[in-house]
Amino acid sequence: MAIPVNPVYFSYVTHTLALISSIFVLVWCISFRGGLAWEHPDKTLIFNVLLRNKHKFRVICIHPVLMLIGFIILGGEAIISYKALPFEKPVKKLIHLVLHATALILGCIGIYTAFKYHNESNIANLYSLHSWLGMGVIVLYGIQWIYGLVVFFYPGGSHEMRRDSLPWHVLLGMFVYALAIGTAALGFLEKLTFLENSGVAKYGSEAFLVNFTAIFAVLFGAFVFFTAVSQPPPHDGYSAI
Amino acid sequence: MAIPVNPVYFSYVTHTLALISSIFVLVWCISFRGGLAWEHPDKTLIFNVLLRNKHKFRVICIHPVLMLIGFIILGGEAIISYKALPFEKPVKKLIHLVLHATALILGCIGIYTAFKYHNESNIANLYSLHSWLGMGVIVLYGIQWIYGLVVFFYPGGSHEMRRDSLPWHVLLGMFVYALAIGTAALGFLEKLTFLENSGVAKYGSEAFLVNFTAIFAVLFGAFVFFTAVSQPPPHDGYSAI
Repeated sequence: MAIPVNPVYFSYVTHTLALISSIFVLVWCISFRGGLAWEHPDKTLIFNVLLRNKHKFRVICIHPVLMLIGFIILGGEAIISYKALPFEKPVKKLIHLVLHATALILGCIGIYTAFKYHNESNIANLYSLHSWLGMGVIVLYGIQWIYGLVVFFYPGGSHEMRRDSLPWHVLLGMFVYALAIGTAALGFLEKLTFLENSGVAKYGSEAFLVNFTAIFAVLFGAFVFFTAVSQPPPHDGYSAI
Repeated sequence: MAIPVNPVYFSYVTHTLALISSIFVLVWCISFRGGLAWEHPDKTLIFNVLLRNKHKFRVICIHPVLMLIGFIILGGEAIISYKALPFEKPVKKLIHLVLHATALILGCIGIYTAFKYHNESNIANLYSLHSWLGMGVIVLYGIQWIYGLVVFFYPGGSHEMRRDSLPWHVLLGMFVYALAIGTAALGFLEKLTFLENSGVAKYGSEAFLVNFTAIFAVLFGAFVFFTAVSQPPPHDGYSAI
């Protein structure tokens, strides 16, 4: 049941929401959490004075940035590439494949940073719903990408196989992507709950910024979905497909 | 892009997941959190010894039970009623309407219990992403229900209005429902994080039970979606529509 709206219009909203949530997560991590760093010079501070000083969080701040901008936003742009871009189908297919591959790689690096931060800070791994669903999402995303590559790109399945696979590829792709958006929201809530337990104000500017980042990420995911399921109404002059 | 599977088969999985997640949330609230109660005899204990003794949590335990069984599961069953039930369309429409109304009422009562618990326990209201999204979901759900009632049931819009509204009703309904599932997952993670901060073991049986309740709720939501978008393949003998 397609929505009779030119998908390009929806895609403008999607891109705008991507920009807003990217700015928000960068402002949060750079201005409130002390910036982005792969290594932190003083490991003992990370271990011992954990949750006391915002400058100790620089290492972990790569995680939300990589997961939101690298994984969620690039992945969303990959999904809507068929509907949002004015190129020929083979070009859009290649963009779809490359954007998803980039999202997958950045997502894997982002997950690695979470383990690295936990290990260097003596925090338990893989106990929370966020981590469980996150591992499920990245594994399913990888399987979905490999299946898409083999069946639709190289070496490519038979015509019947591609025709029969496409609805499942779309359905499972949307499911995994919805799960990714939900997992991101869980991550923002989890991190903010930890921070609030350590003194960050529940109604303060940082709490509002994190909550609104999550809300814009959820809205971005919704508009990815709206763009994907919309079809131009007849006589709209739409020629991007 | 419909999935060529008899929706009734998907609906069996959906009902099973509903049963499992209902049992899980009841076991959690009754066996681990001290049972369900609208009032608690010793208010001072709720205020002062908060997060120390599981028996203090009886009042709030109504919230997850009402929201999961009352709101999420009844709402999901309402969504799939068109695809899962072997009745005539007017009967299924009435079931769709009544189940959604029941879900909405139980959801409102469930939200009230959260405010009641917070107010009686001196906990701040409406600061978390869970609460913000939850309020958004219940308002959108109510608007969606009223619009559906007026346009599709009584007094009912014109043929053109109903035809043009249906894709939007389906799309926005699925969006609000996905948001409801995500909000439920946020609630489980938030509550468990509070409990873990108060001594509940991160890898203990309660933590696993809560995480798996959330995972089964998410899978239930996914299968509601799969049931809704599936169409029986030709020559399947399916006659429920």
